[in-house]
Amino acid sequence: MEQKKTSKRLRCIVKLGGAAITCKNKLETIDEENLKEVSSQIRQAFVPDSTSANVLGMDWSKRPGQSEAPSFVNDFGDQPVVDSESYIVVHGAGSFGHFQASKSGVHKGGLSQPLVKAGFVATRISVTSLNLEIVRSLAREGIPSIGMSPFSCGWSTCQRNMTEADISMVIKAIDAGFIPVLHGDAVLDTLQECTILSGDVIIRHLAAELKPEFVVFLTDVLGVYDRPPVEPGAVLIREIAVREDGSWSVVKPKLEDTSKPVEFTVAAHDTTGGMVTKITEAAMIAKLGIDVYITKAGTDHSVKALSGFLKGGIPDDWLGTAIRYMS
Amino acid sequence: MEQKKTSKRLRCIVKLGGAAITCKNKLETIDEENLKEVSSQIRQAFVPDSTSANVLGMDWSKRPGQSEAPSFVNDFGDQPVVDSESYIVVHGAGSFGHFQASKSGVHKGGLSQPLVKAGFVATRISVTSLNLEIVRSLAREGIPSIGMSPFSCGWSTCQRNMTEADISMVIKAIDAGFIPVLHGDAVLDTLQECTILSGDVIIRHLAAELKPEFVVFLTDVLGVYDRPPVEPGAVLIREIAVREDGSWSVVKPKLEDTSKPVEFTVAAHDTTGGMVTKITEAAMIAKLGIDVYITKAGTDHSVKALSGFLKGGIPDDWLGTAIRYMS
Repeated sequence: MEQKKTSKRLRCIVKLGGAAITCKNKLETIDEENLKEVSSQIRQAFVPDSTSANVLGMDWSKRPGQSEAPSFVNDFGDQPVVDSESYIVVHGAGSFGHFQASKSGVHKGGLSQPLVKAGFVATRISVTSLNLEIVRSLAREGIPSIGMSPFSCGWSTCQRNMTEADISMVIKAIDAGFIPVLHGDAVLDTLQECTILSGDVIIRHLAAELKPEFVVFLTDVLGVYDRPPVEPGAVLIREIAVREDGSWSVVKPKLEDTSKPVEFTVAAHDTTGGMVTKITEAAMIAKLGIDVYITKAGTDHSVKALSGFLKGGIPDDWLGTAIRYMS
Repeated sequence: MEQKKTSKRLRCIVKLGGAAITCKNKLETIDEENLKEVSSQIRQAFVPDSTSANVLGMDWSKRPGQSEAPSFVNDFGDQPVVDSESYIVVHGAGSFGHFQASKSGVHKGGLSQPLVKAGFVATRISVTSLNLEIVRSLAREGIPSIGMSPFSCGWSTCQRNMTEADISMVIKAIDAGFIPVLHGDAVLDTLQECTILSGDVIIRHLAAELKPEFVVFLTDVLGVYDRPPVEPGAVLIREIAVREDGSWSVVKPKLEDTSKPVEFTVAAHDTTGGMVTKITEAAMIAKLGIDVYITKAGTDHSVKALSGFLKGGIPDDWLGTAIRYMS
């Protein structure tokens, strides 16, 4: 008898985009400042009464250059556990894992090739080391974060589509008051032996199963643009409406060149396979009646998105892309 | 339909004792030299044709002080994957996790106490960081090691006894040619909310389900002694016979003081709850007809134990404790 629902409603799924928390062009380098700010914003959003001063850190590992555990460990009293909203964090790989995966072609499968097999192992080492650092960063903010690898959870795919994804352990962790921290991972595939399961696909699956109130994608740009954001005149797409059949269109701002299909416009700067995939995944979530907000990590806009403030309506001064179901 | 068996017979379960691979009195410090030697011995035992020269490393993470991935990544050709025996590695915590767990009392349960909840998170951070380093060390030897956390695997206990422990993912990993690397972990407990699941209990469970040919415990002393090994005249117990009812007795050497029950003698130096627990766990494995060898990591004796050489009989010059079923 599998437990299908959490006992309290899931408030949110937060995606930490790899680009937002790692240094894109530096192999396996975390953007420490961004990660700290994001972790702090997540704490503030879901434990509204918390301040950086009253947080009791949950990462008791010794810090670099120290030989002892941090002294705050002695500060725990018998105060009750602060009640937090339920949420899940999923992160991408950024400068972790991508090198190993693309060098070996793990996503294409074929474990009998030594390069693919080694790349599978190397990819998992890289992404799990990032996961550990994110769990530690959240724990330092007093967030009871628990790293959970899709591979270990037994998730697998068939021809790159998610097939087995038992979320009972994710539910149990949430019900016990923990915040699961999942990540894109190398996984087994029943047809092609192995592949890469992306964080975005994980989020779609979790959203469909657990119906959070909303989903926030934190990235390194303000949202989705009508062309590469570095190009002059790039326009931030503020709102996308998703219809019942899963198709979507830009409703705000009114784009000047309406003869040009938006799908193409967006695809034009999809060099990393990122933005169209992101909108497509987001549209599938929005179709379920779950608002999706894409915005820049570590800004006032991400604070608003994480707090759930946007559920009441998108103010004009909020910069980001809201993807919502319109019946 | 749960898959119950691996498609090829499991050769061995190796326990890396925390004391053997970490510096006992230095918080969260790995004994790098020992870990490297142990990893190399494991490779030699299970991939007999391998040498340190022809190994293709599977840890592609950048090394400390480097900004690029190691250059050997370019050396992979299209040679077939070397066929390895199937085995599982389980490790203890040593100077990782113990501090966090004992400071907070995670083993006693009670997640509503902030200290226990924080300790649970802190313990998992510490043991998973050790797991990552062990996986990396094995991967550097060309071992396709895959870290799997009992918590993420969905394993849990009821009043500290293992209840849920679906090993299907461990089996799938083995069948795909990987070496699962598991560890003692903080887990959920249906009666007391949480506890610590030890590496030894995990091994007993895996041994009962997967029936390996033998089990090797690598530790920091030669084996089990009749009194604390630092005391003068301490005698290494060479062989313990386990009977059908699970009771056990020393068969080699003949202990002088036969009036003194062996259980008590062994318990006398059981300051860490280690040795009697170890023998009791080992006896339960041996009862299944699976030989258990306890010996010192990184020695000629551990090479012999890992190779399966002892299955044919224990030579007089082998130093360690063999625990075997005697009908």
